[in-house]
Order: sequence, then structure tokens, then C-alpha cells
Amino acid sequence: MSVLVVGSVAFDTVETPFGKREKTLGGSATFFSSSASFFTPVELVAVVGEDFGDEHVAYLKGRGIGTSGLQRAQGKTFHWTGNYGFDLNTANTLNTELNVFQSFSPELSAEHRKIRNLFLGNIDPDLQWRVLEQVEAPRIVALDTMNFWINGKRAELKKVLSKVGMLLVNDAEARMLSGEHNIVKAAKAIIAMGPQRLVIKRGEYGALLFDGDQIFSAPALPLPQLFDPTGAGDSFAGGVMGYLARAPEFDARTFRQATIVGSVMASFAVEQFSVDRFRTLTMAEITNRYREFQQLVHFDGLPADLLG
Amino acid sequence: MSVLVVGSVAFDTVETPFGKREKTLGGSATFFSSSASFFTPVELVAVVGEDFGDEHVAYLKGRGIGTSGLQRAQGKTFHWTGNYGFDLNTANTLNTELNVFQSFSPELSAEHRKIRNLFLGNIDPDLQWRVLEQVEAPRIVALDTMNFWINGKRAELKKVLSKVGMLLVNDAEARMLSGEHNIVKAAKAIIAMGPQRLVIKRGEYGALLFDGDQIFSAPALPLPQLFDPTGAGDSFAGGVMGYLARAPEFDARTFRQATIVGSVMASFAVEQFSVDRFRTLTMAEITNRYREFQQLVHFDGLPADLLG
Repeated sequence: MSVLVVGSVAFDTVETPFGKREKTLGGSATFFSSSASFFTPVELVAVVGEDFGDEHVAYLKGRGIGTSGLQRAQGKTFHWTGNYGFDLNTANTLNTELNVFQSFSPELSAEHRKIRNLFLGNIDPDLQWRVLEQVEAPRIVALDTMNFWINGKRAELKKVLSKVGMLLVNDAEARMLSGEHNIVKAAKAIIAMGPQRLVIKRGEYGALLFDGDQIFSAPALPLPQLFDPTGAGDSFAGGVMGYLARAPEFDARTFRQATIVGSVMASFAVEQFSVDRFRTLTMAEITNRYREFQQLVHFDGLPADLLG
Repeated sequence: MSVLVVGSVAFDTVETPFGKREKTLGGSATFFSSSASFFTPVELVAVVGEDFGDEHVAYLKGRGIGTSGLQRAQGKTFHWTGNYGFDLNTANTLNTELNVFQSFSPELSAEHRKIRNLFLGNIDPDLQWRVLEQVEAPRIVALDTMNFWINGKRAELKKVLSKVGMLLVNDAEARMLSGEHNIVKAAKAIIAMGPQRLVIKRGEYGALLFDGDQIFSAPALPLPQLFDPTGAGDSFAGGVMGYLARAPEFDARTFRQATIVGSVMASFAVEQFSVDRFRTLTMAEITNRYREFQQLVHFDGLPADLLG
């Protein structure tokens, strides 16, 4: 089954300790759809400006991503400029030029309204709500957000939250949204707001999936080279939703597997700038890395003499 | 087989968001031996002052810990005063009164020299070396240290490191010791200094075990209540060494299990102040929590349709 993503397509100017890239392809919908496209057909709804080159559209199409929802508006494409220090966990935003993204208003085609797996990328909760009103019978809706909306549009965000099945945020965002410092209490408070499932992303420390009373701890693969963390969270979400979209059943087992697939895709995304790693990635590399994750956390039960 | 620990026995005055305790039982050797004693006989070598009450010795003996190496010196017992904010990962030291610990010089009895599993708690590397010179035929030596010694006695510490089988440090210490920010590169550099195995403790994010070319990621149990993190690292080491001491073989499988046992014991230590949780802990609770750790990280392989 297809996945529909509504979010940003952007240019990123990024500097990390390993180099710099000017106006490279970025944005939440770009990373999400690149990652999800390895598992399932993806349809993208976003807006770009007149400066968005055909080579970028060709890349998306080449990955099988449907671009009929990619609006082209007068003006320039959303442009984010930021850098990372040696602690690659935190991005420093130097400049945010919203450009055509400022007046983005997602309108879904008749076909897109029927898509049953929906990812609402990190955009204004009012726009997320607008999308929710248009989809006809979603099987799962997953949501991303950020501190800016948690602080600035809390009521609107909580309205959206009450209607989604899954929220993916980082630990700082989970604490801010819930007002709880302890992560288990924070998760409980957020699940009480609506989503049955919550993923808390912890960067190089992996992710926690809260699913009913169960907690699943997904590791991150310790990487000797981490080039550029931009897009890791959206690539994670793309892996999760891509995997879920093809799953026959939404049981606890499937959500755990999906969380690992998300971690696998994030681990690839950070190996190169922009979506460059996805340009060469193969399904064999994905399944091999999934096995690496299995090895990474494997341990045996206690021996009989200790079990008494 | 027995474990020998050389370290501190101390009084801790601790304040956390959940309360305050004055001059409660603490110290690296105390937490370590309390934890290890659930798995194997432990002998403790440390020094206390005239103010160290009999009830504390009685507690240690009650846990089956050999106290013949507990020297009593003129003066007061080592006293640490510190607090934790809502971020319970970092201790703020308010006062360190070394007292009798300042002139501690570990002398092993003929019996202690024969013990084959040795844990060198976080003390002056010169003292650690002195202990190493006294033990006769160790099967495994594990070591703890801290930023103070890494900066102040680097050469002496590296001499000790060249002779030990296992180092347990936190991520900041691993970075400081190796001069590498990336944790995989840091681990490689440290293993080149001598220890075949390295555990990097990451507090609420679990631990990484580097064992040859293999990396094992051990989760931490997400706890709704974390009362007092004091002693978590030493309780972790006590679980690891207690488990190893009774293991017939030192293979990769055993070190992974030992790392989880360490994580289990640390997860109990932080539930109450001081060693209080160990006063009531049972083996059934330990094995149940080990199973919780198994559940926490369990996920299935990919379905056949994805494996192509």
C-alpha cells in the first residue's frame, strides 16, 4: 500500500566537521519519501519555487516517488542553513528562509485522499489538521513536530495529536510536550493525549517505542563515520512508515520491526550529505544492516544455575 | 570463584529531587561488593575511619562480603557530598573530604593475593598498580577510573591499562582518555592501550561493550522512578564481575550476558538511596529483571518478502 507524506522539500546549506554543501537537496518530505520508497510506493505533497531544478524532480521520480502533489510556486524554494560541531547530535540553525513554504497550503487530489498510510511531516499544526480533514479512511497517521510548534501552537497541535495513531519526536520534544522530565512519565502523558504509539528518537542512543504498556528499546548502530545528521529523523520515519505500509497486520511485533527498519534507514542517511546515500543504496545493504542490528543487541538467557 | 575489589568505602551525603540522605553508606567498593555478592563470594579491601559504625560492617558481612581487608585507620571515613538536578545523569560534587582515604595503601593478605578475579575501583593509578603487583595469577582484572586521573596521572594510568583485561568508563571518560570524539574510534584507541574488552557506560542510555571487532549494545531499563544514581556504575561493575567470576568460560557470549547482569544490578541500585535496594533484593527479582531486559530489546527478523 502507498504512503502519503506532506512536508517540506527544501535546499539545505550544511557544514559539518567533515565538509560543507551549498543548497543541497533536503526537507522533511524529501528524506522521508527517499527512505520509504525502498519499501512501498510513496506520494509526496509539498511546494517548491522556481529555482528547484529538474534534476531534483528527476531524482524523486527515479526513486519511484509520485510527484503529482509537488506544487511549484512563484518565488524561491525553502532554504535552511545550519551547521554541526563535533557533537553531531545538535544542529545550529544559522538561517531559515521559508520563501514559498510560507504560504504552503496542502491540497490533496482525489487520489491522494484515498491513501491509507499518512505521514504528517514537521509543519504548522493548522496545516496538519487541514490534511487530516481531507484524507478519507486512514489506516495509520503518523506525526512529527518540533519545539517551535509545541510552544507556539500547543492547542492546535493537541487537536492534531488527538487524531493520530503515532507520534515521532526526540526526547527534548517529548519532555516539552508533556511537561514531564522522566521519559517514561512523559510517554505516558503523551499517549494520554491521543496517539496509541509513541517513538522517542534519541540520536546516537537509538529510539524508544512506547506501545501500550510495552517499551521497546531500539539501538543505534555505533558508526565510525557520521557525516551529516540532517534528515536522520525523517529518514527514520520513512523507514517506519514504509515498513508499516506493506505490513499485513499492525501488531506489537510489526511495530518493533518497523522501528528497527527506521533505525537502519537513519543509519544510512547520516553516512553522506543530503540524500546522497539513498542514491546508491540497495535492498541487500538494508537487509544486511538489519541483521547487524540483530547482532548488536543479541544476548542469551541466564544459565540454569542462576535461575535456581 | 571469589572476586576481590579494591576501592573506597565512604559516607555519602546526597540530595536528589526525591529527597536527601546524610552520611549514608557509599563508596565504590561498597556498591561493587554489594552487587557482586549476589553472584559470588566477594572480598573487599578498603579503609574506613573511627566513625564507621558496626552496623555498616554488619551489613557487609550479612551480604557474605569478606571484610578482613577492611582496614580501620585513625581519623574520619571518606565523605562525599553531592547533589543531582532533574537531569539525574550528572552528579554535582559539593565537597570531597578524603580523610583516612588520603593515606590509603592497599596491602593484600596472602589469601587475597590468590584471588583470580580482581576489580580495581576508581582510585589513584599508583595504588591500582601496587595492587596489580601483589596479585599472583589473575584470570581477569577489570578497571574503573575517572577524569581526575585521566588528566592528572595519564602515564601511570596507561601503565595500569596495559595490564588489565577490561576497562569500564563512561563516554566522556572514554573520549578524554582516547582524544577521539567518535565513540567507535575512541574504543579502538583504548583497546590499543591494552584491555581486550571495554565497556562504555552511558547512564540512562545503557552501555556499549567492545569485544574484539564486535560491538554489543546493552539497553538501560527506562524507569519511571530513578531515586539516586549514586553507585550505579559500581553496581554495574559488581554485576559484571560477579557474573564473570562464576562463568566457566570467557567467551563473547558470557561477556554479553555479564553486561546485561551489570545493567540489571545498576537498574536496582538507582531505585533507592545508598545500597538500600540491595538490602531487600532477591535472586528472583534479578532473574525477572533480566527477562525484562530480554523483552525490552527483542525484535524478529525481516519477513521473507523483504529478504528477496
